[in-house]
Amino acid sequence: MKRLKVSNNVIRRLPRYLRKLDELTESGISRISSFELGHQLGLTPSQIRQDFSCFGEFGQQGYGYNVKFLYGKIGEVLGTEDGFRAVIVGAGNLGRALAASHMFERRGVERIAMFDVNPDVIGTTVSDLPVLDVSELESFCGKEKPEIAVLTVPKEAAESVAKRLAKAGVRGIWNFANMELKLEDYPDVYVLNVHLGDSLMVLNYGIRSRMK
Amino acid sequence: MKRLKVSNNVIRRLPRYLRKLDELTESGISRISSFELGHQLGLTPSQIRQDFSCFGEFGQQGYGYNVKFLYGKIGEVLGTEDGFRAVIVGAGNLGRALAASHMFERRGVERIAMFDVNPDVIGTTVSDLPVLDVSELESFCGKEKPEIAVLTVPKEAAESVAKRLAKAGVRGIWNFANMELKLEDYPDVYVLNVHLGDSLMVLNYGIRSRMK
Repeated sequence: MKRLKVSNNVIRRLPRYLRKLDELTESGISRISSFELGHQLGLTPSQIRQDFSCFGEFGQQGYGYNVKFLYGKIGEVLGTEDGFRAVIVGAGNLGRALAASHMFERRGVERIAMFDVNPDVIGTTVSDLPVLDVSELESFCGKEKPEIAVLTVPKEAAESVAKRLAKAGVRGIWNFANMELKLEDYPDVYVLNVHLGDSLMVLNYGIRSRMK
Repeated sequence: MKRLKVSNNVIRRLPRYLRKLDELTESGISRISSFELGHQLGLTPSQIRQDFSCFGEFGQQGYGYNVKFLYGKIGEVLGTEDGFRAVIVGAGNLGRALAASHMFERRGVERIAMFDVNPDVIGTTVSDLPVLDVSELESFCGKEKPEIAVLTVPKEAAESVAKRLAKAGVRGIWNFANMELKLEDYPDVYVLNVHLGDSLMVLNYGIRSRMK
């Protein structure tokens, strides 16, 4: 499949399309027009056609989109079929919550292990994942070559652990440590910083804008 | 302060500005130009001036922005000074991780209690918050009137708990239950659905777009 340079805004909308297509499949709907899809997502039909046109033609004029085919195509663009594997570093509450989530498997990512520094936790199993000693990070990554590391360590430890992961060959870091991680020495490693506080602010604004 | 209708894209950028201004303050920087702010955030100066112009004039031509003043103004727009109070419903791993987070206080939101159904957890304290029986939701909300509910209950329970919260007077629901919550009978209640799986897909795409 061709890999074109696509704007971030389009990329950010694609997972929403996947969720909607999930829903449609569950409701037994196999075909949908750009008009109806747009209506359900609060987007214009032309916006939708434009988004999809970035990756080639998914639909057929007048016939709408085949839900399953579209799901597969968007998944392909996002890499759900690349079979990426993930380690979760930090087996605290957030790490455990993420380990238990079905989102990984649903989106084609396999969780393979967790890491922690706490001797009480090392050697246990969390959501079917072995919790390993963080000192084994390099040897494990060298052998298993996970593409993804989910970082749920304390803020203070985040940068040094991230550098170790990057050096050990991880390709992407999903950072929940609540600090802006930058790995300038590893330009090939993609860092996605999650800022739940930003989402809280959007909630706050949504509430106040509805108040008199 | 005037409350204008502002586009979602602008609102979504404001928390990023807050974080950057936090950082600048910590680095002892008290004044910054739209050019420099834009450079640090990967935005054009005109984009920045345009975003801020939605709320009135924050800067002075040629002098840049006063960091502290700008922080206060953006916080005002987002409602960090409204003193909203939050309950967390669900004292599992995710609820506990959120309860322990400093983001609430940092962004002007006070956490006041947690709720759960598990008798082993009810009556305990998590990150200084009392864990109450979910059967007390209505009486507690009637008395304490929290504006925000953070929903970390299982998917299956989410809608019914959300309706109880809305009926009990909560004004905004931050939904982590990994389902698309809609409260059509409560148009005044703002629902913000968090989909971490969407973020995982953006990570996936970021990784694959860097691979040869």
